[in-house]
Parts: sequence; structure tokens; C-alpha cells
Amino acid sequence: MSVADTQLMPRDPSAQGHSTAAPSDAGGVADPLRRAVLDICSRAREASRALARASRARKDEALEAIAASLEAGVDEIVAANAIDLERGRSEGLSQGLLDRLRLDEARIAAIAAAVRHVISLPDPVGEVVRGSTLPNGLQLRQLRVPMGVVGMIYEARPNVTVDAAVLALKSGNAAVLRGGSAAMATNTLLVQRIQDALASVGLPADAVASIDGYGRDGARELMRARGLVDLLVPRGGAGLIRSVVENATVPVIETGTGNCHVYVDAAADLDQALAITVNAKTRRTSVCNAAETLLVHAEVARWFLPQVLPALVDKGVRLHLDGRSAVLADEAGVPSEMVYPATDEDWATEYLDSDLAVAVVPSLDAAIDHVRRWSSGHTEAIVTTDLRAADRFVAEVDSAVVAVNASTAFTDGGEFGLGAEIGISTQKLHARGPMGLAELTSTKWVVVGDGHIRP
Amino acid sequence: MSVADTQLMPRDPSAQGHSTAAPSDAGGVADPLRRAVLDICSRAREASRALARASRARKDEALEAIAASLEAGVDEIVAANAIDLERGRSEGLSQGLLDRLRLDEARIAAIAAAVRHVISLPDPVGEVVRGSTLPNGLQLRQLRVPMGVVGMIYEARPNVTVDAAVLALKSGNAAVLRGGSAAMATNTLLVQRIQDALASVGLPADAVASIDGYGRDGARELMRARGLVDLLVPRGGAGLIRSVVENATVPVIETGTGNCHVYVDAAADLDQALAITVNAKTRRTSVCNAAETLLVHAEVARWFLPQVLPALVDKGVRLHLDGRSAVLADEAGVPSEMVYPATDEDWATEYLDSDLAVAVVPSLDAAIDHVRRWSSGHTEAIVTTDLRAADRFVAEVDSAVVAVNASTAFTDGGEFGLGAEIGISTQKLHARGPMGLAELTSTKWVVVGDGHIRP
Repeated sequence: MSVADTQLMPRDPSAQGHSTAAPSDAGGVADPLRRAVLDICSRAREASRALARASRARKDEALEAIAASLEAGVDEIVAANAIDLERGRSEGLSQGLLDRLRLDEARIAAIAAAVRHVISLPDPVGEVVRGSTLPNGLQLRQLRVPMGVVGMIYEARPNVTVDAAVLALKSGNAAVLRGGSAAMATNTLLVQRIQDALASVGLPADAVASIDGYGRDGARELMRARGLVDLLVPRGGAGLIRSVVENATVPVIETGTGNCHVYVDAAADLDQALAITVNAKTRRTSVCNAAETLLVHAEVARWFLPQVLPALVDKGVRLHLDGRSAVLADEAGVPSEMVYPATDEDWATEYLDSDLAVAVVPSLDAAIDHVRRWSSGHTEAIVTTDLRAADRFVAEVDSAVVAVNASTAFTDGGEFGLGAEIGISTQKLHARGPMGLAELTSTKWVVVGDGHIRP
Repeated sequence: MSVADTQLMPRDPSAQGHSTAAPSDAGGVADPLRRAVLDICSRAREASRALARASRARKDEALEAIAASLEAGVDEIVAANAIDLERGRSEGLSQGLLDRLRLDEARIAAIAAAVRHVISLPDPVGEVVRGSTLPNGLQLRQLRVPMGVVGMIYEARPNVTVDAAVLALKSGNAAVLRGGSAAMATNTLLVQRIQDALASVGLPADAVASIDGYGRDGARELMRARGLVDLLVPRGGAGLIRSVVENATVPVIETGTGNCHVYVDAAADLDQALAITVNAKTRRTSVCNAAETLLVHAEVARWFLPQVLPALVDKGVRLHLDGRSAVLADEAGVPSEMVYPATDEDWATEYLDSDLAVAVVPSLDAAIDHVRRWSSGHTEAIVTTDLRAADRFVAEVDSAVVAVNASTAFTDGGEFGLGAEIGISTQKLHARGPMGLAELTSTKWVVVGDGHIRP
């Protein structure tokens, strides 16, 4: 490597080099939009220094100020939200999206309650993860520290704006937020109120910032703000996540794509299998832990499918069936208008709707292979009373969560006792499965000597 | 998100879907080079399933077979290495690069000894990281599991081929390696011997593969093999790392760029400061934990610099000095041919050579700001007897390792007691600082119920 090859851009354009000549910084960037986004990130980075030093008491004080400001500002927030809803209607947003976008007094109260719940959670910062005194007397500690600046790109629901800001702040991070354009008026007001709340307790308002005003190009700059953004979490549909993964040069954690499977083994308790399948598919169809494919061992298919398929149809589930299961559905009198032939697209699809793909598999191996081939790596469940089958499924399925005789719906930070959840990671780096406050931190090694040099 | 938006490509083209119609796989990719690389990655992924299930005993047996094969094959390896050296000479490689490329009997013995050291390390796979029984009776465990397929892109030194393969195997992973073209004959033979050793103990030879034959385009495909590569570790100069970060869509850990600083505080023990500075700069100049910039508080500069600068020059260090330190160097009689004026490029540069940038700073704040601005986030040291100064430096410097009254040279997996080291991460995600075997693993949540459904 030549010297010329090394980084000429400073790592942290926000820091002021007192001892050096006029430094280049975000202000030196030509493109005005890029400059504006990098400037926001730089200010967030500078603010993150104060957040990293802030005590838990100070951070909780900020969170309480945010909760109180949301409650006090209900009328204003609902009015801003009405602007978004009106524009959404005129642009023909679906009823589902309009519902996700809508804030009313009850929903705002729920958001404030969620903020107060985060206040009750312990602060992960400062935890000593490992530590020892080395043979040479050096004292070594690995401490949990904030990431620094966390970027978040998400879609319609404005409650994510508050969620993301509050989880970032509690874990000592600054946050740069990019919400969906459909919620722009609402998000702008929410960020403003969060910034005011920060300032009211003496923390820098720049610690939570929005780049919603810079559109998709702004989001792209956020993805490429190396040295300014320590972690970027996209939260939304597969299209958004793919776009972030393709374009980002900052570290990313992929979240939330859940093509989840339920496998009913030859040795399943079929009553449990019925309850688990119906729960995993129909409890809430729009969430990432909902089941999208049912696999049934051939030995029990002729008993199980005639039970489960009508039960699912009763709940309004459309069935995408392979050849074997279609024959059994027909024999069981499942209405043909609820039945579609399954294709590879069905195995690959996260419906997030009242649809379920169904296949009969000849063996446990075939079930594991199907899951490994098509799953998004979120959550898979096996229903079985055979310990060996359970162990093999747990060991060989390569997903964040593997459930034995339990619904996929349990994959959730709250259910797992993490207290809060910023998203569910489907990658293996840093965090896998539900991400709580600890997953928004990094570590730092501290080495303390007394003039130690290495021989 | 529309259904059409979701992933139509299966996540794991290596798995065979027994129950589904003819699946597309790597074989369906049109570009022959891309197809070849994806095919290697697919086979590694398939092999990773056997590795993930392999007992520690079996993995250690494979490692011993590798060590024995290296020792038995010394003549063959030296002969293959001679081909690379000869080509390197004819292509005008520097003496330094030729030396890094060279393998002889002693170096091969050292590599085999390093493999046996890894045999002695505990296996991280299977560790229960967290676990509890939830209020509803669900049994929850978070287990340490292999990543799956680890990609590694590195430069000249062929010992990295063995290092990377052995650390990946011990932690239950398959490895896809891309070494520097300069070492191609050597690396090809080393991978062949590793594959033979794997087969000799009944593990799949595909678990360690090389894509050296596919050049830079092949490396690029490896960076984009989403769903097949779980972690990519670039190990080399800043140019290589930047290229990987720019092009990769698989998860990456940046390693090894070390623009490390030593800060001598107003309250420093100057004898310790002298020893630490000389050690940090001159112990080995070509390694990432070597100091590249010295910052000295103005209050002690007039006493300290006249001691340290001549001592550094005596060791052959070229000095890149700011205005204040240049005046003091001149007064101390430092030979002018060893002195250069420091520019922003010097603050930004990881010399990896006998060069040191030096600045006098007016305060601890200025030192921290300089480090935050220019450091690559690897290792920084403060020399001080002032507890508050030490605490502030530790808290506010944003690097993987912060040392108090100790040389930067201690940043090393072996020194930290991790046993082995795949690289030193300078990012905050997943691993920060020296990466050992545990850092090559992920986790999996296992949820065991008895027919549990979520209300």
C-alpha cells in the first residue's frame, strides 16, 4: 500500500483540529444536497459526544421531557398528521397505509407510554463486558459504549420516529432519521418536539435530526456518510432493505424481512400443530413474525391438512398449495376460490397478508432444505414430539430464531424480555433476532498500564 | 411493499428444494465467471452445514492434519513459492513485498505451530450466551453458532491463507479465500493441501476454497454473493479495504487500518512517555498498531521533544513536524535531513514505515479533537499521571482500543489473551479491536415450548 493510498479524508469531519491547518470538512463538499446531509450528520456526531457522556439520569430526564411534550402537543400533532393524511388521500394511498399513517389521541398516548417504558429499562452503556489483568500487569477492560450516530431509514408509521429516537438516546447515541415522505409533516413536528425536549434538559438538540426534507437523494447520502454514521438500520419492506444494502457504504443491519415457516413433523402432536399454525398465520398477518409457508410431513399430511386447511380458510386465509396438498384440500371440501397453485414465487414470498403457501414434504431433510433454500432467516418453527427431529431442525435451520412446539409469533423483543426493540435482524453480524438497547451499542477496549512497552 | 417487491431469488441457492419444482441456482447465472464464483460459494455453503455440526474433536483432527500436511509438504510448498518469487522479481516487486511473499522451512514450521496453537484454543460454538424461562413457560436460549461462510480478501502474505482457513474451520465456518495474485502458486498449493487434510478426516473439502483463479472480477463477485457469504473480512491496505466497502453487498468487517496516536499530556511521566513513544513507533513500523502521530501538550513540549525527537532519529525515524515542534527540533540539533514539514496529509496518513508526524497541542481538548478528526479508530495512547485527563481521554476518544500509560503495540489478539486473531476491527459493528474465534461466530435464539401460541 502506498502512502497516497491511505485515507486523505479525515475520519471525522465534525471534530475541529485545533493544532492543524484549516481542515476540510462537510463544508468543503460541492454538491449542496450532499453538503446539507453531511452537515446534519456532522452535527449529530458532535452531539453524540455529549450523549455518550450523559448519565442515565440525564438521558431518562430527556425521555420524560419527550413523553410529556408528546402528551402536551396532541392537538398540534394531530393537526400535522391531518396534513399528511389529506395528501395521502389525494395521492390515493390505500386504506391500510392511511391507517398506519394516522395518529390520534389514543395512539399518541400509547407512544408516550412506550417512551416511559424505555425510561424504566437499564442503561447498557458502561457495562464491563470482559476484563482481566494480563500477565504483564496491564489492566484490560472491554466496556460497552454507544455506537455514536445511528441512522434509521423507515417507511410510513410515524411512531417509528419517536421509537427510534428514544432507543438511540437511551443507549447514548445520536440519531439521524429518514422517515417515509407520506409522514413528512408529522415527522417534522415530532422531531422538532424531541429536539426541544433535549434542549430543555441541557442536551444538544442536534442529537436527533431528520433528513426528510432531502428526499431519496438525501437518504442515499446518509447511506454513504462514512466516518459520520456508525450504524444504519433500514426498517421496512424488502425493496427498501435491498436498496440500502446495495447502496450503503456505512455498516448496515438488515431487519424485518420474515418469510417464516411452520414445519409439522411426522411425530407432531397434531392438536398443537393446528393451534400453532393458525396462530402463526392469523394472529397478525402484517407483521414479520407471521408464518408464510406451512410444510407438512407426508406421513401426517392426510390427517393434518384436512383439519388445518379448513380452519385457515375459516379465518380468511387464501391457500397457495403444491400438488399433494391441493388434492387433500379438494378431498376436504376446501372452497376452490380460496385455493391457488403454488409456484416458486410463493415459496419466496413474504405475503404480509392472509395468504399461506403449503407444501407436503417427504422427510425432515426435505423440510430443512426447503427452509434453508427459501427462508429469509427470520423465524422457523417445528412441531414434533421427536427429540432427534427437534435437535436436527434447531441445529440445521439457519435462521435467527428457531422455535420448537411454539408459534413463530413469539419472535419479539418484548416477548424475549429485551424490553424494547429497534427491529429484528435477519443477518448474522452484530445482532441476530430482536434488537434491544444493547444491540445499539459497541464496545471499547481500555488498557491501563504504568509505562508498559511491548518487548 | 408489494408482493412483487419481495425476494424472488432464493436465499440459499445451494440447498436443494426436494418438494418444489426445478429450482434456479447458481447454475442459472449467465455470466460464466460469476457463475463459477457463486458455485464455489454455494459448495462452501453446503459444506458449512457439516462444519457447523462437527464436534471440536473432529475440527481439531482436521487442524492437526493440516499442520502435518504443511510439515510433510515443505519441499513442494517452497517450490511453488519459488514460482511466485521468480514472477515477483521479474515484475519488479519491492524487496519488502518479496520478503512478505517468501516461505522457507522455518516459516512453514512457524505456520504449522500456529495451527497447533489454534487446536489448543476452546471451541466457541455451542456456548449458551443467554438463557431464561419466560413467564409463559417458554424456554429461551441464545446459542453461539458459526457464521456459515466467511470470505477473506487479503494481500501478499501466504501465511494468511492458512491462518484464515484454520480460524474459520475451528469456529465451524467454511472459508472462501481470495489472496493476492502475487502469491497465487503458493496459495493454490496451500488450499489444495488444506482440502486434502479436510477430506482425510471425513470433512468436506469444499469447506475451504480459493477464488484466486478468477482475478479481481472474481473478488468482486465474492463481495456481492448475498445469501452465500455471511461475513467478508478484507485484510490489507486502505485501498483494498475501501474497495471492499464500496463494492460489497455482503456484511463486511473493516480491519487493520491503524493511524494510531500517542498523546503526551501536561502531567505525563516523561520517562514513561519517551519509552512508550519510541516503542510504539519503532518496535515494528509495518504493523497496524504502530504509532503514526505524536501529540505533545504545549506545557511539556520544550522538555519532552528535545528528548524524544533525537531518540527517534537515532532509530532512523523521519519526522514530519508542525511549526512548534520544528522549532524545538532545530534547537535540539535534530539533523534537518530527517525533518519534513507536516501537512494535513501527514495527519491522515498511516505511514507503516519509519515516519512519524508530530504536533504540539495547546490542551487535552485539542489532543482529543485531533485524534477524533484524523484517527482511523484503531488504537490511541495517552501518557499522563492525571486521573481526570486519563478518564476524559478514555471516554472521549472514539477508537477500538484506548491505552493509558502503555504502548499502542499491545493491541493484538495474542496480547489480549484471545488466543488468535483474524484481524483488528476498526468499525463498531459486531467486533471492535482484535477479533478472535468468538468474533467469527453469530448467535441463534432457540425457543422451546409445548404447544405455545401467542395471545
